[in-house]
Amino acid sequence: MKIDEEDESTVIRRATEYKPGRSWSRLLVGRPLSTADAPHQTIGKVLGLAVFSSDAMSSVAYAPQEILIILAAAGMSAFHLSVPIALGICALLAVLIFSYEQTIHAYPNGGGSFIVARDNIGAVPAQIAAAALLTDYILTVSVSISSGVAQLISAFPALEFLKVPIAIFFVLLIMVVNLRGVKESGITFAIPTYFFLVMMYINIIIGFVRMLAGTLGMVEAPPMDVILAETTLQPITLFLILKAFASGTTAVTGVEAISDGITAFKEPRSKNAGTTLIIMALILGSMMLSITFLGNHVGVMPSEEETLISQLARTVLGGRGLLYLGTITATTIILVMAANTAFADFPRLSAIAAADGYLPRQLTYRGSRLVYSRGIVALAGMAILLIIVFNASVTRLIPLYAVGVFLSFTISQSGMARRWWKSGKLEAGEEIVEKGSVLKYDPHWLHKMIINGFGAFVTFIVMIIFAITKFIDGAWIVVILIPGLVFVFSAIHKHYSNLAKDLSLDEYQPMARIAHQRVLLLVSSVHKGTLNALRYAKTQSSDITAVHVSIDPVETQKLRDKWEMWGEGYRLVVIESPYRLFIEPLLEYIEEIDRNRKANEIISIVVPQFIPRQAITNALHAQTAETLRKVLLSRNGIVILEVPYQVD
Amino acid sequence: MKIDEEDESTVIRRATEYKPGRSWSRLLVGRPLSTADAPHQTIGKVLGLAVFSSDAMSSVAYAPQEILIILAAAGMSAFHLSVPIALGICALLAVLIFSYEQTIHAYPNGGGSFIVARDNIGAVPAQIAAAALLTDYILTVSVSISSGVAQLISAFPALEFLKVPIAIFFVLLIMVVNLRGVKESGITFAIPTYFFLVMMYINIIIGFVRMLAGTLGMVEAPPMDVILAETTLQPITLFLILKAFASGTTAVTGVEAISDGITAFKEPRSKNAGTTLIIMALILGSMMLSITFLGNHVGVMPSEEETLISQLARTVLGGRGLLYLGTITATTIILVMAANTAFADFPRLSAIAAADGYLPRQLTYRGSRLVYSRGIVALAGMAILLIIVFNASVTRLIPLYAVGVFLSFTISQSGMARRWWKSGKLEAGEEIVEKGSVLKYDPHWLHKMIINGFGAFVTFIVMIIFAITKFIDGAWIVVILIPGLVFVFSAIHKHYSNLAKDLSLDEYQPMARIAHQRVLLLVSSVHKGTLNALRYAKTQSSDITAVHVSIDPVETQKLRDKWEMWGEGYRLVVIESPYRLFIEPLLEYIEEIDRNRKANEIISIVVPQFIPRQAITNALHAQTAETLRKVLLSRNGIVILEVPYQVD
Repeated sequence: MKIDEEDESTVIRRATEYKPGRSWSRLLVGRPLSTADAPHQTIGKVLGLAVFSSDAMSSVAYAPQEILIILAAAGMSAFHLSVPIALGICALLAVLIFSYEQTIHAYPNGGGSFIVARDNIGAVPAQIAAAALLTDYILTVSVSISSGVAQLISAFPALEFLKVPIAIFFVLLIMVVNLRGVKESGITFAIPTYFFLVMMYINIIIGFVRMLAGTLGMVEAPPMDVILAETTLQPITLFLILKAFASGTTAVTGVEAISDGITAFKEPRSKNAGTTLIIMALILGSMMLSITFLGNHVGVMPSEEETLISQLARTVLGGRGLLYLGTITATTIILVMAANTAFADFPRLSAIAAADGYLPRQLTYRGSRLVYSRGIVALAGMAILLIIVFNASVTRLIPLYAVGVFLSFTISQSGMARRWWKSGKLEAGEEIVEKGSVLKYDPHWLHKMIINGFGAFVTFIVMIIFAITKFIDGAWIVVILIPGLVFVFSAIHKHYSNLAKDLSLDEYQPMARIAHQRVLLLVSSVHKGTLNALRYAKTQSSDITAVHVSIDPVETQKLRDKWEMWGEGYRLVVIESPYRLFIEPLLEYIEEIDRNRKANEIISIVVPQFIPRQAITNALHAQTAETLRKVLLSRNGIVILEVPYQVD
Repeated sequence: MKIDEEDESTVIRRATEYKPGRSWSRLLVGRPLSTADAPHQTIGKVLGLAVFSSDAMSSVAYAPQEILIILAAAGMSAFHLSVPIALGICALLAVLIFSYEQTIHAYPNGGGSFIVARDNIGAVPAQIAAAALLTDYILTVSVSISSGVAQLISAFPALEFLKVPIAIFFVLLIMVVNLRGVKESGITFAIPTYFFLVMMYINIIIGFVRMLAGTLGMVEAPPMDVILAETTLQPITLFLILKAFASGTTAVTGVEAISDGITAFKEPRSKNAGTTLIIMALILGSMMLSITFLGNHVGVMPSEEETLISQLARTVLGGRGLLYLGTITATTIILVMAANTAFADFPRLSAIAAADGYLPRQLTYRGSRLVYSRGIVALAGMAILLIIVFNASVTRLIPLYAVGVFLSFTISQSGMARRWWKSGKLEAGEEIVEKGSVLKYDPHWLHKMIINGFGAFVTFIVMIIFAITKFIDGAWIVVILIPGLVFVFSAIHKHYSNLAKDLSLDEYQPMARIAHQRVLLLVSSVHKGTLNALRYAKTQSSDITAVHVSIDPVETQKLRDKWEMWGEGYRLVVIESPYRLFIEPLLEYIEEIDRNRKANEIISIVVPQFIPRQAITNALHAQTAETLRKVLLSRNGIVILEVPYQVD
């Protein structure tokens, strides 16, 4: 350590440079990074698109298919409805992009729904937004990974029985990548993301060229599992169309990622993030439309056996050749990595919520690689649980998926609309600082308020559609879960505020000096460790009592004889325990003393601990000291001292 | 509490009478018993036969069948060999009874193999005996319960798929009965044991009467699973006969139980125990022979589907009537309870071995009901594990079963033989006390030595036969396990002796008084809990340093300001931690101080702990104090003080 500064009362030291160990965790996540390294860990537009957009873009791998699965209930003749539905989703995407562009510029330090809601509406909407988003990040991981594994199995059906283990493996893989830190994530993820885009556009271009040339046929040997399962066809109702639309809206679930993660961008942050958002929307919209249109044209069948992408690719590319395998590989990888978007945002959001006291404070702690390690591990754990429960089936996970996203969209856009309204109330050039964010008069406030207000309205309607049409399929879980989480957040917040009040020194009356200290030395037998503890106890006070709980009278007699010789005349209290209990009689005795304790008196309980050479041998010794410590720690005025005696 | 005795230096207190709680464990095991109640918990011959003989007697439910299963390899024509094999087993039983009768009278305080070997041969044979017996008690539980469930399934084949769960349930049931204590076990088990004996003799008598009257036919629709599985028949070799004999010897595995448990008998202990032993042998031998003979006569088939007892009973009793159901019920219950013998002896033996330092000391602790609760729970756990691994199949468990028993028989009988030989060397009327047991001249020493010597020889041969014929079927596991256990026993013994030596005060030089105490007060923030800890620290020493590990510079500045106001001028050391680590920089600092520590100096580390109202909220606070405690406890000269501050 080196000493940096020293005055009469305060010494500032600096811990020595880190000496890397050789642990497994080090090997996995890399050497620790210093806090001072933090500002350098930012990324540009090219990496930013890869890190924050893989979720949104990869959703084209499942959203068109999920639309067809719903329409299938009305038979194959309903499939043509998928194209207008995809157009509707593109319109929704446009509304969201306009709205979020404004958010990104208004919140250059990260404008996730939680922050926007907290700053502009209030604590409860902010908690609702946080609950909705956290739920959704978990589902993003489960859905994307499950869909990725489904692609893989379309190409290699023999792996079907390993579906769940493969999905779990992928979650753990991304967890480790993220524990290494955001910059390395960007590099790791850039190549596959761009590989996916190239493969998708190759398929789309070849598809359209062959269609125009008239050489694009129908899917050969399409999987029949979904259609054949339906015996009586439903009519095409508005409910069915809205339900299919709701399934398709899962395609836009990733668009908020960039506005949550603006701080990860290089300066000028807002500009870089905004440009990235627009590029992402154009790519996503064009792919969604093209894939739906081409899929419809070649007659793909929605199936749990073979994905739509697989059917489309082998039809467009004329069989299961190298390009087909490339397409499946790229799709699998992008889906697995899409989960990365959630891994980038879940820990950040939980750290923000934790800093505000809505989640355990430990989530604000950044690990050795400057990432919020605990949030990353928590996310992986919950996503794996969902994958196991829903057997890695995208179709079964989808109904839980988008309610939360659209709820948070609505809250965020409402918050932004309210912000512009407040901005319009200011004088030109006036600036106010409210809850940490600068608000100034904006001449275009009305225009901007209308855009965000419309965004809020549209997303609210979509949320209602989703919740109603998918309610019995699983949306009810989320409808219950989100208020539940808000309740937990409030409880945690209340705990922290009460604690802060209880511990506060604002009206503190210093307590009188401790006038007397009574020492109880616990003695199970008299040996070197006991005498070592007695030696220490003597520094505490001269009022020392040795206390022994007697279970075996023969042992007790030996102990009395030894204490006679070694106890330096200090008083020994023997508590006979006819029921062979240890803790209870001791507690009874301590409580008796505690009752007679005066205000300026304190009881110190000295526990001799001998520490064996090997930790494994601990199992050979009763851990009564440990138990006692747990019971006594909850009492004021009683202090526990463990005096170790190292055996060597 | 009341004070019984008080002189100037020692006070004897007595813990108050026990106030019963309403916990689940209390409901299951009953109210605690005082140590003073112990001597009353003894039993007479009638209860003793039930408690200690159910293992031995119940083995007639599987031993004859296991003989046939081996003979089946040579075809049905080999089945007639089961009768001479059963006669051989009765001869073996007679040898054992003669031998153990002598042990019971020589060791009125319990003459298990472990004690006999320890007193007369040495520590290593004693450990081998202990290892063999403990292994075997576990197997007794697994085999008996599995056989009991097999009987049940013979009567109700629909339950087959629940085989393992039913077996586990029975193990847990006996565990609870035993946790209640030995006397209640005796009562619980007496009625079913005698019910079993009555049912068996009804079957045997009706069987012989009908045989003599010529009305006893053959088994109708015998199960064919075992015979049909064999396609090529083996010739009848000596190996096969010895292997069948080895399977049959499992019938005598319970006879040592009484000599292990003599102390549980009413006075005169040895006489009561000896009489019980002979009664048990007569019952066991007569049942073994009768069942084998009758089974052979009616042509039972060894099967995993229907037990021999079931086939015999429905043939003798003329169908599946009330008496048949009574027989199956009685057999199932006695088998389930046979495990009780092991539950009576395993905890006793492990307590004896633990008292000698070969097993963890905790096993000597008697629970609230005066039984060795930890041993009981350990036995149940291991038996359940075996049941799961071997899928509750008696035939698959048998090869592991008897090697250990016969090894312990051999050791025990050798020890007795050696004892008589020593006794013969004494003068008439002379008495010596050796290792706690009284040895006096016995005029019949040569006669007795020959009996025990012959017992040792016979059991040794049986053990070799068993180990060789069953080696590949599973006996190899035990052949490896027993030396492994002996190694573990020795390691534990060495640990305890080294520790006793290290802690011994025999050549102890009292250490000099502690001259100086340096107090480090860990401060994460300045609040009431911190000041409470500082108040306490001031009673320790005036050399107090507050130590803060700084991760966030803003928080640290707040802390420095607060310490300025509340720190009473004590020095504050701020350790900057660029890698956001907490424990490591603190340890580095403490080690630096520790290196400069003088011999008569001690470092006290005061850790403020605030204790939240509800324990559940602990999860909301970093448990760094706990981690630190674990790391620092292993250092001499450093004492950890936890000063609690109860928030309320």
